[in-house]
Amino acid sequence: MKTDIEIAHSVSMKPIASIAEKLGIEFDDLELYGKYKAKIPLRFIDKEKVKQHKLILVSAISPTPAGEGKTTVSIGLAQAMNRQNYQTTVVLREPSLGPVFGIKGGATGGGWSQVLPMEDINLHFTGDFSAIEKAHNLLAALIDNNLQNKQYSLGIDPRTVEWKRVMDMNDRALRQMILGLGGTSSGVPRETGFDITAASEIMAILCLADDFEDLKKRLGNIFIGFTYSGKPVYARDLKAQGAMTALLKDAIKPNLVQTIEGTPAIIHGGPFANIAQGTNSIIATRMGLSLSDYVVTEAGFGFDLGAEKFIDIKCRYGDLQPSAVVLVATVRALKYHGGAPLDSLKEENLEALQKGFANLEKHIENMLQFKACPVVAINRFTSDTDAEINLIVEKCKSMGVDVSPIDVWAKGGEGALDLADIVAGTCERCENQITPLYDWNWDVPTKIETVAKRIYGAEAIDFSSQAKKDLKKIEKLGLDKLPVCIAKTQKSLSDNPALLGRPKDFVVTVRNIEIASGAGFVIPITGNIMRMPGLPAKPAAENIDIDNEGNITGLF
Amino acid sequence: MKTDIEIAHSVSMKPIASIAEKLGIEFDDLELYGKYKAKIPLRFIDKEKVKQHKLILVSAISPTPAGEGKTTVSIGLAQAMNRQNYQTTVVLREPSLGPVFGIKGGATGGGWSQVLPMEDINLHFTGDFSAIEKAHNLLAALIDNNLQNKQYSLGIDPRTVEWKRVMDMNDRALRQMILGLGGTSSGVPRETGFDITAASEIMAILCLADDFEDLKKRLGNIFIGFTYSGKPVYARDLKAQGAMTALLKDAIKPNLVQTIEGTPAIIHGGPFANIAQGTNSIIATRMGLSLSDYVVTEAGFGFDLGAEKFIDIKCRYGDLQPSAVVLVATVRALKYHGGAPLDSLKEENLEALQKGFANLEKHIENMLQFKACPVVAINRFTSDTDAEINLIVEKCKSMGVDVSPIDVWAKGGEGALDLADIVAGTCERCENQITPLYDWNWDVPTKIETVAKRIYGAEAIDFSSQAKKDLKKIEKLGLDKLPVCIAKTQKSLSDNPALLGRPKDFVVTVRNIEIASGAGFVIPITGNIMRMPGLPAKPAAENIDIDNEGNITGLF
Repeated sequence: MKTDIEIAHSVSMKPIASIAEKLGIEFDDLELYGKYKAKIPLRFIDKEKVKQHKLILVSAISPTPAGEGKTTVSIGLAQAMNRQNYQTTVVLREPSLGPVFGIKGGATGGGWSQVLPMEDINLHFTGDFSAIEKAHNLLAALIDNNLQNKQYSLGIDPRTVEWKRVMDMNDRALRQMILGLGGTSSGVPRETGFDITAASEIMAILCLADDFEDLKKRLGNIFIGFTYSGKPVYARDLKAQGAMTALLKDAIKPNLVQTIEGTPAIIHGGPFANIAQGTNSIIATRMGLSLSDYVVTEAGFGFDLGAEKFIDIKCRYGDLQPSAVVLVATVRALKYHGGAPLDSLKEENLEALQKGFANLEKHIENMLQFKACPVVAINRFTSDTDAEINLIVEKCKSMGVDVSPIDVWAKGGEGALDLADIVAGTCERCENQITPLYDWNWDVPTKIETVAKRIYGAEAIDFSSQAKKDLKKIEKLGLDKLPVCIAKTQKSLSDNPALLGRPKDFVVTVRNIEIASGAGFVIPITGNIMRMPGLPAKPAAENIDIDNEGNITGLF
Repeated sequence: MKTDIEIAHSVSMKPIASIAEKLGIEFDDLELYGKYKAKIPLRFIDKEKVKQHKLILVSAISPTPAGEGKTTVSIGLAQAMNRQNYQTTVVLREPSLGPVFGIKGGATGGGWSQVLPMEDINLHFTGDFSAIEKAHNLLAALIDNNLQNKQYSLGIDPRTVEWKRVMDMNDRALRQMILGLGGTSSGVPRETGFDITAASEIMAILCLADDFEDLKKRLGNIFIGFTYSGKPVYARDLKAQGAMTALLKDAIKPNLVQTIEGTPAIIHGGPFANIAQGTNSIIATRMGLSLSDYVVTEAGFGFDLGAEKFIDIKCRYGDLQPSAVVLVATVRALKYHGGAPLDSLKEENLEALQKGFANLEKHIENMLQFKACPVVAINRFTSDTDAEINLIVEKCKSMGVDVSPIDVWAKGGEGALDLADIVAGTCERCENQITPLYDWNWDVPTKIETVAKRIYGAEAIDFSSQAKKDLKKIEKLGLDKLPVCIAKTQKSLSDNPALLGRPKDFVVTVRNIEIASGAGFVIPITGNIMRMPGLPAKPAAENIDIDNEGNITGLF
């Protein structure tokens, strides 16, 4: 069987200008990055069309090591829609470079549902992550420089500085450090660390901003810490927002590429869905809707994380309205949720599947809570039996839910034609009925409780003493009307990664609540979320190579 | 008077494809980065033409705060040569982003001798620095990951690890740190730090590599440290070189832009001349020589640093031969070298100028030691008096040296027509006569002594006890036949930044000797070189801004 990169290389890409032409963009309006990548100027956003055209959100059951293929399905569905003459663009997040050298390999779909050029998209792409990293680290350097220089000092208490640095690398040794060592000319010693770039608040900000002006305002609003006299300090107090915005002058523009079938793909922004809103940029979504009748987009991890935040945060900031929501499930993952061991997933196991269906069932119920018309896509693997597929189909039908088995890895768009028609039908039938779960004006604990009880299925919420202090701080800073972007493990509906399927009677513990006042949300932290991953004992980097003609191998 | 950015914006750039056309490159062969930047594929290097065409090196007197304008002169000279019908490309280094937010502002020339688009070149440009940063930090992550994972451990002694991390930011707090804190799952605690990206050995390697194969070999040769049993460890032992080369797949290709007069400009690589070879890439120089009859290039800082390394390291690795060397001097800087205070440099002061000429004189003598035919360019400032200019002209003439006052800031190429003719004449007259100063086969102390005594003018060399240990280590590792890339302050011919003019009777102290076995040189460190700059009390970042149309202000 061919690998993803071999399949990618077996296809000749079209010049990106001819993809842009399909969208009504002329060559002279593109900013090319090589022959197959381009940035689209922001002036192509058309507010009227954003309102008229249809937004399709792809989400999934709770992720498992068996894999769900949400990106692959998003790409395959967009290809299928174009085959059925629904003019569609797929709008995705940019992959993080760090995991490419760890376990994961690439993040550009798979098989005959990929975005191309996959090496470029997986490596530096058009430099957006680097630009975000620079803007983030410039603010950090300005903070440490202000601590260093007494002359223009704001009197920041270094122990209160919450702004860390970022690097797009899986590098656990950077998680916690003492810097500023080496004497009076080399900074003020203090404890801090690095997060991975996708976890940067600037990534979240870029993905929520309307334009340069809004971007700059949000960057200025980043909360840094307190002065010794207890006054809050924001990035604007360091006059950082102009230079930070200048660093993002190209990163703010969405990137155009193509899928393996020539469907236009806009890839822009890449925040994590467990600690940020986890969806591509509002600008990219609006651009897609301005340029084609339908946009297929995805939200990170399960429906409880990415999709909840998509509807409650992104759609509200961006004044967007999804017309259909597709939930991706696989036989393998549901069996795993039902207790089947990872190495047995190729064998038929209707009992485990039946049991694991509870996870899918809860996500369907959650979709209904947002008043969405659920559509379930069963992403086929070759080892799935007909009996297994039928079991899921029947159970979905008995809940009155549309369901369609698809095979987009092996067949591309051809493998999801039925799903494409169902989704297009749902867009007509269920337009404008999705509603948010909570009112931003509610107090923070009520907002957290609403999500945790209604979406996660928690019995109760426990606020640690630190979380209670943080609630007071948030109120004092006047940030209590912001939405809650709950950080939680993606592996379970609960905050305990070990609880698979549909956990019940559990308590969600809020350890602390972080502030992302630039992005415009607060982040209640539950469980043990890591913002800087590590590399595995044998990193994928060891297998990546390039020949003297520049051909890369070992990305998958 | 208009600022540099205002002058830059007053000109309409030509599409980069039309600049490429002048060089015989067709549109389809370019890899565009927007409309005004492009990468040139390596296949355009033509070995025969590299041999036939003429290379002109621009160097300078010892830098002072008064400014010499070496980049501005290089650009202006290339423009002048084209005006005189010598087909010329200017080949420069990429500016480092860090200093842009510090004191310096941009580094793309000035006035009517600039390279464009100056904002892009000064900010992320085509992402080369970011790619180098990633490749560097990937190796660091792999090292710390190997320390963490006992299973595949190489047994590296963390106290011997010499490989740091890099960030293209002026951020003194990162100079020295303890990372790996936070318990057993977050790395092994150890002391390390960050250098600025231009100081990365990978930057030096990229600038000395022939092609992908050579690049990969050099990356694999990077020395990391020792195992507990004293065995040397290289990057290849971590299987890092394939992934690192893959990260550099686009960075290896030279970037094409244009000067304000439409002269082709190739800008590629940006190593520091005080701690690395300090010139653009061999690939870029060869590319320039393949595409035009003349190439004007520059080497960093004074002739004692950049130009010595250019001839003794770069030219030998790259089999290149400069046909002419231009030394840039200014009236202001020479007066400063002669003891005039910085705030008095606008006033005529023939006495200080006479005294400060000694610095220029020594650099001319050094040029003669390499058997170059010296050409001196006096870069005019509006405050210079005719008497001052004449004094320099007369003194140069009495030494039998060609000299030409130029005014490229205010007049562009028009301001250096005479210089262009002199340089073209020198290329004919003095071809193939420049010879290196020392033989790589000499032992390391002799090589250091030769440069320090003959070029710096030192009386004696003092090796610290650490340097003596390092010499033994270098011999043990079999690296003693590598050239010496001496790290020394740029502010003085000596290793003491306070000694202006032409210091005599001084001792150069070699503190320690670092190994850059991938780049292929050893680095004797003299004095107090900083590899990570800091920001000033009022950083330039505070004044940088961007409006809602994406227009940047405050870069200068």
